[in-house]
Amino acid sequence: MRTSIATVCLSGSLEEKMYACARAGFDGIEIFEQDLLVSQMSPEEVRALAARLGLSLDLFQPFRDFEGVDEDTLKENLRRAEAKFQLMQRLGMDLILLCSNVATATINDDELFAAQIRQLADLAAKYEVRIAYEALAWGKYVNTYQHSWKIAQAVDRPNVGICIDSFHILSRGDDPAQIAQIPGEKIFFVQLADAPVLSMDVLSWSRHYRVFPGQGGFKLDEFLGCLARSGYAGIISLEIFNDVFRQSNVQRTAVDGLRSLIWLQSQTAALLEAEGISSHLELHALPGRQQAAGFDFTEIRTEDPEPVARLLVQLGFEFCGQHRRKPVQLFRSNDARIVLNSQRSSGIEAEVCGFGVRMPQAGEAAERAQALLAPEVPRLHLDSEADLPGFRAPDDTEIFFSADKSGWDLEFGGEPLAAAEREPGAVTGIDHINLAQPWQSFDESVLFYTSVLNLHALPGTEVPSPRGLVRSQVLATDDAGVRLALNIVPAGLATLLDRQHEYPEHIAVGTDDIIALARRALAAGMEFLPIPANYYEDLAARFDLDPALLTALQELNLLYDRDGRGEFLHFYTQRVGNMFFEVVERRTGYDGYGAPNAPIRLAAQFERSRWNSH
Amino acid sequence: MRTSIATVCLSGSLEEKMYACARAGFDGIEIFEQDLLVSQMSPEEVRALAARLGLSLDLFQPFRDFEGVDEDTLKENLRRAEAKFQLMQRLGMDLILLCSNVATATINDDELFAAQIRQLADLAAKYEVRIAYEALAWGKYVNTYQHSWKIAQAVDRPNVGICIDSFHILSRGDDPAQIAQIPGEKIFFVQLADAPVLSMDVLSWSRHYRVFPGQGGFKLDEFLGCLARSGYAGIISLEIFNDVFRQSNVQRTAVDGLRSLIWLQSQTAALLEAEGISSHLELHALPGRQQAAGFDFTEIRTEDPEPVARLLVQLGFEFCGQHRRKPVQLFRSNDARIVLNSQRSSGIEAEVCGFGVRMPQAGEAAERAQALLAPEVPRLHLDSEADLPGFRAPDDTEIFFSADKSGWDLEFGGEPLAAAEREPGAVTGIDHINLAQPWQSFDESVLFYTSVLNLHALPGTEVPSPRGLVRSQVLATDDAGVRLALNIVPAGLATLLDRQHEYPEHIAVGTDDIIALARRALAAGMEFLPIPANYYEDLAARFDLDPALLTALQELNLLYDRDGRGEFLHFYTQRVGNMFFEVVERRTGYDGYGAPNAPIRLAAQFERSRWNSH
Repeated sequence: MRTSIATVCLSGSLEEKMYACARAGFDGIEIFEQDLLVSQMSPEEVRALAARLGLSLDLFQPFRDFEGVDEDTLKENLRRAEAKFQLMQRLGMDLILLCSNVATATINDDELFAAQIRQLADLAAKYEVRIAYEALAWGKYVNTYQHSWKIAQAVDRPNVGICIDSFHILSRGDDPAQIAQIPGEKIFFVQLADAPVLSMDVLSWSRHYRVFPGQGGFKLDEFLGCLARSGYAGIISLEIFNDVFRQSNVQRTAVDGLRSLIWLQSQTAALLEAEGISSHLELHALPGRQQAAGFDFTEIRTEDPEPVARLLVQLGFEFCGQHRRKPVQLFRSNDARIVLNSQRSSGIEAEVCGFGVRMPQAGEAAERAQALLAPEVPRLHLDSEADLPGFRAPDDTEIFFSADKSGWDLEFGGEPLAAAEREPGAVTGIDHINLAQPWQSFDESVLFYTSVLNLHALPGTEVPSPRGLVRSQVLATDDAGVRLALNIVPAGLATLLDRQHEYPEHIAVGTDDIIALARRALAAGMEFLPIPANYYEDLAARFDLDPALLTALQELNLLYDRDGRGEFLHFYTQRVGNMFFEVVERRTGYDGYGAPNAPIRLAAQFERSRWNSH
Repeated sequence: MRTSIATVCLSGSLEEKMYACARAGFDGIEIFEQDLLVSQMSPEEVRALAARLGLSLDLFQPFRDFEGVDEDTLKENLRRAEAKFQLMQRLGMDLILLCSNVATATINDDELFAAQIRQLADLAAKYEVRIAYEALAWGKYVNTYQHSWKIAQAVDRPNVGICIDSFHILSRGDDPAQIAQIPGEKIFFVQLADAPVLSMDVLSWSRHYRVFPGQGGFKLDEFLGCLARSGYAGIISLEIFNDVFRQSNVQRTAVDGLRSLIWLQSQTAALLEAEGISSHLELHALPGRQQAAGFDFTEIRTEDPEPVARLLVQLGFEFCGQHRRKPVQLFRSNDARIVLNSQRSSGIEAEVCGFGVRMPQAGEAAERAQALLAPEVPRLHLDSEADLPGFRAPDDTEIFFSADKSGWDLEFGGEPLAAAEREPGAVTGIDHINLAQPWQSFDESVLFYTSVLNLHALPGTEVPSPRGLVRSQVLATDDAGVRLALNIVPAGLATLLDRQHEYPEHIAVGTDDIIALARRALAAGMEFLPIPANYYEDLAARFDLDPALLTALQELNLLYDRDGRGEFLHFYTQRVGNMFFEVVERRTGYDGYGAPNAPIRLAAQFERSRWNSH
């Protein structure tokens, strides 16, 4: 599939955008006129730079407010158009986007639209320019693809076709199925955009909130399937107006965009294959999608392992050994393995730096990650050591794939560790990992984890904290064997370091008997995050709890929640550096994360952080 | 008027919020339950702290999802309510907010609603608690104030009245006029919120985008007028859910909130006085509203005045003199006076630090600013020197008021400067000042300038820059004698210093003949901000310009715009420190600011800034 991206998706100068698109691996770009206007580069320079970078210049856009106007305006519009055709010649471009008239149309007459566009087409033909007519969702008279196609047919010129933009169709709730009836060769261009499901005016939604395919709520695989059915064999381009992308690192955004198209074509290929439909789009399928079997380990980077080790021992973890070569320690309780890594840890008190997931076919999972442009984590392994392929997520978390019997823990002690007898109140495994996300890379992270790890996104929530709302997004495998909670913390007024301390990341481990575990931890000297008395009074008001349980909860600083399926008990340790631990007990299938309790935790940590800084 | 504010409007812990509200000068607060739950303070401590700070605890809120339920749920709800009444006793509070049921109502029956709320009322009476019933705009069955009032009447208990919230009424487009028909004593509480006019689902709009009165698009003076007509004599409170306020400095937000109520009651008092209506609200009117006659001067802070002075001389300004006592210089061209201040300027290359406006009654303008809680700028003046009262805007700009004949310029030379003969191409005066705003204080700034300087806000715009969209808001006097453009720059990835260099502030001065001025400036060695050739090609395509004019524009790096009234020609100087100058010529009444050219400028400055940093 030939891929392209509109320059308006990215931050920076036109030159920076072109470099970023080429490095990411796009085949071409759309020149958004504004980006050229503000550039010091001449059209000839742009053309030459694109040629050197191997980028095709696929579409010049937008040309606005042309058809449906009076004769004087038409004359003016044709003059304006001719100047742009001349500019396109200098750029070496042959396709222009004509948007349906929004502002200046005064005559609602399909025949007039066609006649005027025919004049434009004949003028364009002199410059060997083709015209892709696009119905904007808020076009004054023309705002559906069916209508733009009807007009393009009436124009009846070989150099006039239509442009299909998923946003303009799906935002209106229109059915894309009829795209399949349009001859593919009359679809001159395709632009894809996803968007979160928002209820707001469509213009603002379009201009600020578009996201890359897979980051929103549109079914773009089905949409692309409709295009495949039409016989379309052209370019698939991204046109994403997004306030955050405009502020983000141009190179990362370009990679994020291409990843979305790689993922989408694989999804679509699977869809079409299931229906036995062949496509001219040459959709590339990714190496097999597989379900992660669970967390293999989590990794903490720390200059001094002792404070974290102390917490782990208080939680009942056992020290397994030191790595044979590296300053890395392994702790374990049943299926929960925690690695304390002191490499490259100068000045780092403690932070969650990565995790491993068990994959039935670890090699294939790594190939998939590579195909999805995940940056590799180079890690030396000797011949006698396990080779776990590793990749860096947008939030800098390192993710490793391991087969069921990779045996990496052999490097920590010579003998595989016998699975300890599961005692009541022992930590049984890793329940979930909570990772802080920079606001610039949240959508990127969601797509990364969804596509590379095959997680699916649950509905997002917002949690009030003393410094602003924290946006939270859970991603999980279908069987919830791997669960991640991504949090975007508010930018606020604090410095980065303050923010890390107020919004630390955490590892949540599970147990079958949290009260026994908490009592043992308390006896071992563990300090819990203190929960206010007001919380327990409200708990009593909200739930008709057994008074003995309520007393135990308050005594041990445990929190409580309930859903339709069961109960959730959990507690938090104090923070060490930029991380802490949570211990959870899920009773009879509770499936949430104690969301009502998250504000309590955030306020308590905030209070503690202020208290520590005095 | 008694003022109050809900703790949910503010950032920080409950304790911090209470201190901030008391310091700002609120009479009381609403306790938002979540803020109490997450607090380590006991209810008794909260009560005692409020007493010491002189804050009344006006409303406990919210109590949700009570009425319209089955018998079992009702029983559970009454149990839950009783726990809250007991809590209120410990807090010493007697008023609770009951929101119309959103989630759990299953029976749509007004009589049942009334009967169930009557049970609640009788339980509440035992604890001497009164209930203010509020129709949420998205209540399942009850979502208008008329409906909630009908039910409150049917409940027929002295301890049940209604709560009126402007957002829930105005967001639906409901007419508040009927509020005047409700007996004031049955309105137990009033919450005010403004909001920008947005087209989105009302729940998201309410939870994230509310703003203080005067910062949005609701006509809250008319709304408060309706309440006055009802005979309401109670508290007017602010309940603002705003994502930015939640992240901002708690003390500043509290002052901002109280300022909004001070301003609103004065606006409402004027409205009622004009209609001859008396009110029990005891609305306090501010000292007279007056129109600023124009800019008196603008002030630039700079460690080394020479680079700015060089620009001014190139633009035709004359040096008038050095201040008799202070390291401050005055430059002038006709009505444009520019002060270069080197006090407290260590390390500051150059920045726009303030401006003076001429006020017919400067003393009264200062009283008004004081009443609006504007922080004063302490400035020493000897008996022989002019005393210009000064105030600090939320963006730290210093604003001074001067009477027409304050004679402060005498301090710069001994003699008042004769108004220079106005030559063609001389700078004639200050056209507007463009001030960068931190994103946290944008709404605060708009209210500040609107209320303290009597400016009105024009529709906002968004300007693309290479690092994100810049939100721009023009504020002006009715006759446009004083114009400010406030810009919020994107947070982006850059450091604060980079941002200042990429998004500097500027002073725009006017002239009658910009081409003559630009030629003289060029001859004097001025470097203009270089405008790309692509811009002039587009200009030729958009406007049918005289080729000679187009050539002159390009040669001189001038930009061009046109509106229904006339033409606009302008150019930019290079940046010095965090500021630059713009020169504008408005032909035949052009009233804009060259908005289509702003992206050209931002990209050119961005390019320049990168170039300089290499």
